[in-house]
Amino acid sequence: MKIKGTHYRSLWWNHDDDVLEIIDQRSLPYEFIIQQVPTMRDFEDAIVEMRVRGAPLIGATAAYGMALAMKFDPSDANMDAAWESLNATRPTAINLRWALNRCRVALRPLAHSDRAAAALGLAHEIADEDVEINRRIGENGLQLIRDIAIKKPEGQPVMVLTHCNAGWIATVDWGTATSPMYQAHDAEIPIHVWVDETRPRNQGALTSWELGNHGVPHTYVTDNAGGHLMQQGMVDMVIVGTDRTTRRGDVCNKIGTYLKALAAHDNGVPFYVALPSPTIDWTITDGVAEIPIEERDARETTHIQGTRKNGTLGEVQVTPEGTPGGNPAFDVTPNRLVTGLITEKGICNASEEGLSGLFPKMAAVVK
Amino acid sequence: MKIKGTHYRSLWWNHDDDVLEIIDQRSLPYEFIIQQVPTMRDFEDAIVEMRVRGAPLIGATAAYGMALAMKFDPSDANMDAAWESLNATRPTAINLRWALNRCRVALRPLAHSDRAAAALGLAHEIADEDVEINRRIGENGLQLIRDIAIKKPEGQPVMVLTHCNAGWIATVDWGTATSPMYQAHDAEIPIHVWVDETRPRNQGALTSWELGNHGVPHTYVTDNAGGHLMQQGMVDMVIVGTDRTTRRGDVCNKIGTYLKALAAHDNGVPFYVALPSPTIDWTITDGVAEIPIEERDARETTHIQGTRKNGTLGEVQVTPEGTPGGNPAFDVTPNRLVTGLITEKGICNASEEGLSGLFPKMAAVVK
Repeated sequence: MKIKGTHYRSLWWNHDDDVLEIIDQRSLPYEFIIQQVPTMRDFEDAIVEMRVRGAPLIGATAAYGMALAMKFDPSDANMDAAWESLNATRPTAINLRWALNRCRVALRPLAHSDRAAAALGLAHEIADEDVEINRRIGENGLQLIRDIAIKKPEGQPVMVLTHCNAGWIATVDWGTATSPMYQAHDAEIPIHVWVDETRPRNQGALTSWELGNHGVPHTYVTDNAGGHLMQQGMVDMVIVGTDRTTRRGDVCNKIGTYLKALAAHDNGVPFYVALPSPTIDWTITDGVAEIPIEERDARETTHIQGTRKNGTLGEVQVTPEGTPGGNPAFDVTPNRLVTGLITEKGICNASEEGLSGLFPKMAAVVK
Repeated sequence: MKIKGTHYRSLWWNHDDDVLEIIDQRSLPYEFIIQQVPTMRDFEDAIVEMRVRGAPLIGATAAYGMALAMKFDPSDANMDAAWESLNATRPTAINLRWALNRCRVALRPLAHSDRAAAALGLAHEIADEDVEINRRIGENGLQLIRDIAIKKPEGQPVMVLTHCNAGWIATVDWGTATSPMYQAHDAEIPIHVWVDETRPRNQGALTSWELGNHGVPHTYVTDNAGGHLMQQGMVDMVIVGTDRTTRRGDVCNKIGTYLKALAAHDNGVPFYVALPSPTIDWTITDGVAEIPIEERDARETTHIQGTRKNGTLGEVQVTPEGTPGGNPAFDVTPNRLVTGLITEKGICNASEEGLSGLFPKMAAVVK
């Protein structure tokens, strides 16, 4: 999408230097810094440190990491080592494993001499596919927004609440949850987005940055506000992304998503999850019982980054010295709270029947 | 309760200087600053700027404000003017109006010459009463904790989640929600408190500061974490405070409380609200429809205060420049989500029958 009028993807290949370039998202929304990713260590750090973040973008980044590994050493042993080291960077993002598996399956049969070029081509393909998948998610979600808009009084915007950043910078382009919003805005359907702050990492600031750059009206609110807004009839629908969705449609997403799903359910507000099919983990059914939840550094909860009055980056500690913190990074929303899943193939119920109806081949593979 | 071994209340009368002294809670948990409140303007500012905060403490502070007004001008006109100006400082806290009404009713029949001394005596009485009320709330809530502790395996702490700061510094002493926790800890029942951060003002840092000073084990978590913790069986009960509870037991409390009540309900976790009876608004039944919700400055959501590395107070802006923010400060938890109300007279169902059973006279007055 656009930054100050220029179109960007969140990663791209620099053909002059033969290297991947990314936007360092740790500096967003304060500074726009482009970085090259020249070594395997840089790839691992980029994912672990969340320079790149968002399930689809992590997947694409990992594919470029595999391409780099094949360039330096195309052996099976190195392929497996790269798979392991990249897969270990974030435990929850299913796209990471999906992308790495896809690479390994495609590369394994090839002669060593062909692997580097093939791996790079595959990384490009995965990135381009992500853009197309998200464009289609947007097309499908757009219809939902249009249906609500038709029923609203003339000129009143469709009020959409979102949690975390499932925006274009969390993907290669368009975003997942935001894709319907961008497409509605571009189609001149009036929308207004309630942007959840999304503590502890305040990804809502990223979503605000994205939406502001694209001109989509929005309001930044604390994670606590959504229930009240729904009670007061100020939310027409919720659209969030997901890091991993189970076979039956349980949705693992940024911590706090479950609370919004409960509030939506309690107030009759439709709760949609936008997901590219690589985010579906067909091997898992019960999300609450089976998905391991990443416990991140408690410092993320006790220290907060932002800009100082003089515009430079700074950090403050909110808690008293020595306060113990806890930081589970994701939660699972049971499928009973999900109105529908917006995929690149269409919208379905959050159920095994729904998902396998849209993706019969994928569903069959691990049956 | 105790700070570094010394017992404090959150306000007290300085007999030497004949003036009220308060702890400036804006500087907590970073600095411990005692302030005098010598003028009406100081009283209004103290409440508006949240130097004092918490429904019971605001009520007691307002009573001292009325005493100051009577000292300078004990006329009916000035009594009404003080009522108006103090009542306007915070729209949601029912204790504020309760304390001011109590003062006016008691003072109106008195000779002007008697009003100053009587008003000060009444303020002392309201403050002392608050301490006793909260002590009793703690006694009643302690029994709930004890009942859970008995059923837990030996040595495993009772896991209590709380939202916002309904602690001793939000009252004159003991706190409301924290009073059962302090009394359980003092009775050597092992407890562990999940402290919600409570954005946007991070009152969880105050609760952590309180609990830490008193030696109560606790963990500071984001507001988003509670649902996941309950799903995983890591919360035995929730205890929160309230700014205003309706006749039928709908609970208005800090924004985000409703989301925790939904999660507790969804996971079979008992959800209790600790409240002194002055917090009950007998004139209101349907909290969602009838309680006006204070919309505070959006800057509270976009800017965050804390300590810098060098220990001084600092502030950072989290959002991109120009991001619009929304900041509803409270929400309403419908009585159907509340397991019980812990009052100074005992524990009851969140219903008109429950409350009027414990407080028949109060219930009858506005029937």
